[in-house]
Amino acid sequence: MDTNQINEIVKKVVKEVMAQSEGAQAGASMPIPPQSLAAYIDHTLLKSDASIEEVEKTCEEARQHRFASVCVNPSYIRFVAEQLKGSGVIPCCVVGFPFGTQTPAAKKSETLDAVKNGAKEVDMVINVGAIKSRDWPLVKRDVEAVVEAAKGKAGVKVILETCLLTDEEIVKACTVSKLAGADFVKTSTGYSKGGATAEVVALMRKVVGPDMGVKASGGVRTYEDAVTMINAGANRLGASAGIAIVAGPKGDGSESCVACGACSATCPTGNCGIVKSSY
Amino acid sequence: MDTNQINEIVKKVVKEVMAQSEGAQAGASMPIPPQSLAAYIDHTLLKSDASIEEVEKTCEEARQHRFASVCVNPSYIRFVAEQLKGSGVIPCCVVGFPFGTQTPAAKKSETLDAVKNGAKEVDMVINVGAIKSRDWPLVKRDVEAVVEAAKGKAGVKVILETCLLTDEEIVKACTVSKLAGADFVKTSTGYSKGGATAEVVALMRKVVGPDMGVKASGGVRTYEDAVTMINAGANRLGASAGIAIVAGPKGDGSESCVACGACSATCPTGNCGIVKSSY
Repeated sequence: MDTNQINEIVKKVVKEVMAQSEGAQAGASMPIPPQSLAAYIDHTLLKSDASIEEVEKTCEEARQHRFASVCVNPSYIRFVAEQLKGSGVIPCCVVGFPFGTQTPAAKKSETLDAVKNGAKEVDMVINVGAIKSRDWPLVKRDVEAVVEAAKGKAGVKVILETCLLTDEEIVKACTVSKLAGADFVKTSTGYSKGGATAEVVALMRKVVGPDMGVKASGGVRTYEDAVTMINAGANRLGASAGIAIVAGPKGDGSESCVACGACSATCPTGNCGIVKSSY
Repeated sequence: MDTNQINEIVKKVVKEVMAQSEGAQAGASMPIPPQSLAAYIDHTLLKSDASIEEVEKTCEEARQHRFASVCVNPSYIRFVAEQLKGSGVIPCCVVGFPFGTQTPAAKKSETLDAVKNGAKEVDMVINVGAIKSRDWPLVKRDVEAVVEAAKGKAGVKVILETCLLTDEEIVKACTVSKLAGADFVKTSTGYSKGGATAEVVALMRKVVGPDMGVKASGGVRTYEDAVTMINAGANRLGASAGIAIVAGPKGDGSESCVACGACSATCPTGNCGIVKSSY
């Protein structure tokens, strides 16, 4: 498939989606029982300096709360796959994270290695530089390399890093990811300028239709965030705050703050949904 | 080499270096002719959304100013190697960037791919998570995998991401990198909490001695920054602001600002060394 063919397809999709989107809003929030959110959550620990003790704790939490998966960096996936054995929680690892600027060959090798080490889902980062260079054949080849390496062994999600893309680029990236055989498109790494928004999730859902997954990630920290993303079209959520999310609605969180003074990315008490700028 | 052996070696080095460092300061600033700084500079473009046009411009600038290398993400290294042919400027690419959390096997594959595509220097990111887990054999195996893949074809620099490490961890990481056969230790990716400091560069130089390279990177934006790092012990500088650096001393830059309004990571006029918070 050459550039012209890809351009034709995406032109058609962009036109259709943009027409549908005119004046559209993200769907109104529908209440969801907090505990039922667990099955949506990829319990995530991706900071580069995470220790094996932190990874172990994340696995324990995922088993306890029955989250969908544990999502970690590739050097921990073998350990995670062992920890999760028999739990029903999926071992998931990122590839080309968080920049996505490796070659297709390198991403393929990294995926083969991840699958060999027990990954059952792989979240790859798209090549944003190739998108900015309008090199859509490279973008497609890159996703195909990972899909091929994971085939029959692991599902593939494609992280678009939507905060760096225009709406048109998001539509094209979704289309190319679907053409390349990926299972999900995903909004964000959580390590760039911004995370998921309801508008972007709704746009992605419109482009890929009902038979592909959409994962909202980056800044999904509360029950309310999670419900908003699901109502916008997400069927998976990436979050390090899974425990706070399944604890349910908390308003702004201030009424349940126990003032423990140990605030970190998520409240360590699990009692509080507040997002502080100092987090 | 097992954990005990590594621990013995690093304990010895930590003791020696810490004793030497008592009360030591980074060396006093010695003036250096601005143009002679070009040979120190890895002209760097690593943002994930860099387009091929930006990479091309970076190569042109490097040829013109005779910088040491052009340092890019791996999906651009083949293009950069072609662009720099016959110029004497080294094509350099990063591996495992910017998190360093891949397995040794994946980093080895990525390095083999980079070298095949023309990389003559490879800047790999160390596994910080393994350091935080005190898994020094893994840290060493990881560097060795890259060194082995690059052997005889490309020099290897090890990015320590020093802002995430304690002084003791920096000493150990330098020691392990040297033991593993790397050519350089390097301070920072430029995409974490902080960049190079004179104190850290001096510490790294003390640990590795005179027969290994030390590259200062992250926040090196002016002639003054460059001179400070060299006087502290760096013999290579990673910077996207190479043109401003070789333009020479500019005080705070305000006297040469042409108020073009197009401020970006480095002043596009090359007239200004100011570092603005909005950059």
